Amino acid sequence: MKRHNQHILFSARPQGEIEPANFKVVDVPMPTLDTGEVLVEVRYLAVEPAMKGWMEARADYIAPLQIGDVMRGQGAGVVLKSDNPKFPAGIMVSGPLGWRRYVATDGRSIPLREIPQSASLPAALNVLGITGMTAYFGMLDIGKPQAGSTVLVSGAGGATGSVAGQLARIAGARVIGIAGGKEKCDWLVSGLGFDAAIDYKSEDTTQRVLELCPDGLDVYFDNVGGDILDVALNNLADRARVVLCGGISRYNVSGTVPGPVNYFNLVYRRARMEGFIVLDYAKRFPEAIEVLLQHLDSGELRHRETVLHGFEQLPQALMNLFSGGNIGKQLVAINT
Amino acid sequence: MKRHNQHILFSARPQGEIEPANFKVVDVPMPTLDTGEVLVEVRYLAVEPAMKGWMEARADYIAPLQIGDVMRGQGAGVVLKSDNPKFPAGIMVSGPLGWRRYVATDGRSIPLREIPQSASLPAALNVLGITGMTAYFGMLDIGKPQAGSTVLVSGAGGATGSVAGQLARIAGARVIGIAGGKEKCDWLVSGLGFDAAIDYKSEDTTQRVLELCPDGLDVYFDNVGGDILDVALNNLADRARVVLCGGISRYNVSGTVPGPVNYFNLVYRRARMEGFIVLDYAKRFPEAIEVLLQHLDSGELRHRETVLHGFEQLPQALMNLFSGGNIGKQLVAINT
Repeated sequence: MKRHNQHILFSARPQGEIEPANFKVVDVPMPTLDTGEVLVEVRYLAVEPAMKGWMEARADYIAPLQIGDVMRGQGAGVVLKSDNPKFPAGIMVSGPLGWRRYVATDGRSIPLREIPQSASLPAALNVLGITGMTAYFGMLDIGKPQAGSTVLVSGAGGATGSVAGQLARIAGARVIGIAGGKEKCDWLVSGLGFDAAIDYKSEDTTQRVLELCPDGLDVYFDNVGGDILDVALNNLADRARVVLCGGISRYNVSGTVPGPVNYFNLVYRRARMEGFIVLDYAKRFPEAIEVLLQHLDSGELRHRETVLHGFEQLPQALMNLFSGGNIGKQLVAINT
Repeated sequence: MKRHNQHILFSARPQGEIEPANFKVVDVPMPTLDTGEVLVEVRYLAVEPAMKGWMEARADYIAPLQIGDVMRGQGAGVVLKSDNPKFPAGIMVSGPLGWRRYVATDGRSIPLREIPQSASLPAALNVLGITGMTAYFGMLDIGKPQAGSTVLVSGAGGATGSVAGQLARIAGARVIGIAGGKEKCDWLVSGLGFDAAIDYKSEDTTQRVLELCPDGLDVYFDNVGGDILDVALNNLADRARVVLCGGISRYNVSGTVPGPVNYFNLVYRRARMEGFIVLDYAKRFPEAIEVLLQHLDSGELRHRETVLHGFEQLPQALMNLFSGGNIGKQLVAINT
């Protein structure tokens, strides 16, 4: 196979929903290696809801994307050539490779991480990637589930929610997931060991949370915001923790999005609502990866990916996240 | 003076704003003393915004008021007669006396606390009372101000806010208060040592917070909710704490009150919004009182009361809180 390099550039800020016209595929030369560099052939690229915030320059915890930048994103691939003993040819690596088919780096300018031999590339971008780190630190450090406590996770069919819920289960909590559609809900209960799942598309979420969590929620892990956040705020147990991880129901709304009308229940329930940015935990990623690998090896923790094939599918893969088209982690497989 | 007992009953739930018709003054016999009881002549009764929640049966952290109940509230007075060695005649006591001119109790059914000799009765209901406890635990336990940090307090001209702000100042923080009107703002800066005050009635709060807190808020102590909460959420420093103490801007609105549209900034700023109920800290009240007494004695902590005279003024005193008519603690002096 003749190797051919391409990048996808961020070419226009979205007006409302993300669309293919926000991106542009460009042909670029194969990178040449400088001293100490490695050439990575990318095999998978991951998409995440947070990308919309970067594209809109709305998220200020990270430099906003500039028009013309290579689209930022996590990827995993194989080292084809190496002038760097830390990353010899043939090993698998992951890191913020961007939407590129081929990447040359010294492993620091684009920080590379060797993928453990027992882990697959998809797992490296899912459980062991940024969404896994988000689930780990959000659930365990902010949510702090206890044995016997009740934990509700929204967006539970996605990469972060599905891992976050399993980590709460492993901690001994009773875990209820909210997801859209029967397939996702069946997977949560039968595949991942959630105690129950609520299909917000066909069930009355308010009623079902009340039925399933009669003693209230000790932890609510929020990936969606909007009405479901308000349902959770209305059903908190005393001293509950609301983990603000995402707000995907907000991301496609233009103009002002209403806030949670039930926020004042935080007072009555002596409860806490807290946000976090996973990059703040970077120094502790190795700790998390070690624990998550153990859970993977023991079979306690499972993962799933929805994979589109072809580099040019990346914009579509990103759009999938906002239509709920993915189960587990949305990836794109390339160069295969 | 012939002693004559009266109670004020809670007689009708408010429809919207509190009005005199929600209460009824009734003549009742002077209480007689059983074994172990004391007779307290009430001198001051205190009113608090939280009462509206009790009257509306909206607050569920405490039993709602039933129609016909004696109105619940904190008071302070003198022990006239005593069959209880813990509370000898002549000492001053405070506790949840209710809206009564005279109270008989064994000191447990209505828990009495002896007022320290160095403290006045108004101070006992203000700095050393429930609002003082609220300020102490809310600011120090939840807000955790540090030396050099920036603290914003809304409702700063009220009893809780004025004490909370001073406690942050004593902790070494830079403190900005938001209050309604020049008189309150002047008092905060000149009287209490706040670093600045914002008059939300005549100034652009958004602009002033930006000017006065260019590095963002490390702590926002919220007594008001509404637009000011949103201004604060938009100006948080990283790892800020938003202390939800009250939401007086909400209390007179019927129907659904909008939530804070800027809540998602808690994610970008890795910040926390947390509510609390001061009664949860009851076991630690003695610790707080000891510290607050020291601050009073040293002159570091000041307090002010707005006093109406006459038992029948209690409903009006309560209504004052919602029109901002009080500076510092709103009290009613009776039996004088």
